[in-house]
Amino acid sequence: MKLDDTYFMKLALKEAEKAEIQDEVPVGAIVVVDQRVIARAHNLTEKLNDVTAHAEMQAITSAANFLNGKYLVGCTLYVTLEPCVMCAGALIWSQLDRLVYACKDSKRGFQQAAIKLHPKTKITSGVMEADSKKMLQDFFLKKRK
Amino acid sequence: MKLDDTYFMKLALKEAEKAEIQDEVPVGAIVVVDQRVIARAHNLTEKLNDVTAHAEMQAITSAANFLNGKYLVGCTLYVTLEPCVMCAGALIWSQLDRLVYACKDSKRGFQQAAIKLHPKTKITSGVMEADSKKMLQDFFLKKRK
Repeated sequence: MKLDDTYFMKLALKEAEKAEIQDEVPVGAIVVVDQRVIARAHNLTEKLNDVTAHAEMQAITSAANFLNGKYLVGCTLYVTLEPCVMCAGALIWSQLDRLVYACKDSKRGFQQAAIKLHPKTKITSGVMEADSKKMLQDFFLKKRK
Repeated sequence: MKLDDTYFMKLALKEAEKAEIQDEVPVGAIVVVDQRVIARAHNLTEKLNDVTAHAEMQAITSAANFLNGKYLVGCTLYVTLEPCVMCAGALIWSQLDRLVYACKDSKRGFQQAAIKLHPKTKITSGVMEADSKKMLQDFFLKKRK
């Protein structure tokens, strides 16, 4: 049975939940190659005091470590929020096959900044969008209280 | 005596030399606060098999660790090559005071991609430009042989 984008995005959302529990902005990412998860990560910017500790950055590093090569050939990265400029820049360098994200980031998203990924990287968006959006909205609502 | 941009860029070039010795694209970066160097790093993408291991990314992480805070308040980052989109994205998040770079990157530089840093970050370029350019050109010339 071929596992679909919804299946893998649910795993990324599980990663986002791990961030949420630690009071981090709930964003999660996984990297998949040939239907197999080779990296999982969640946002850790507060815990690590490090703006570079986005879920995608850690997932890219972890996947490259697994593959023992810096190019993410044949890989799909699933992330619960549209990547920012930094993460998009890392994705460009990684030359991955596919990026799938759940909901748009209208303020910080790379597509708003008109960044283009590597020509060979295909993009799909909107997978489990409502679930990711709700998790983020609930998080910021709680923060404002 | 106030140490100037040339002094600090020479230290960044020393970092770039460390990369060159390890057969990495020679780019070095340092972070300075109140005339004091708080982070030094050089490109390690090949050694670590990691596209995110640019000199700037490591310097940002290291400086934040030193400051015990993710915002690089009062900091200047000196880097021998114009940052790429990824590194510029990280610099945006870091909200540092000042970026000083030596030579332009006409292919991969963030200014070519029309990325704007945080409004409070001042940019200076061209410090020790010829030295950095020569180091990079010599490296790629040797690679092509």
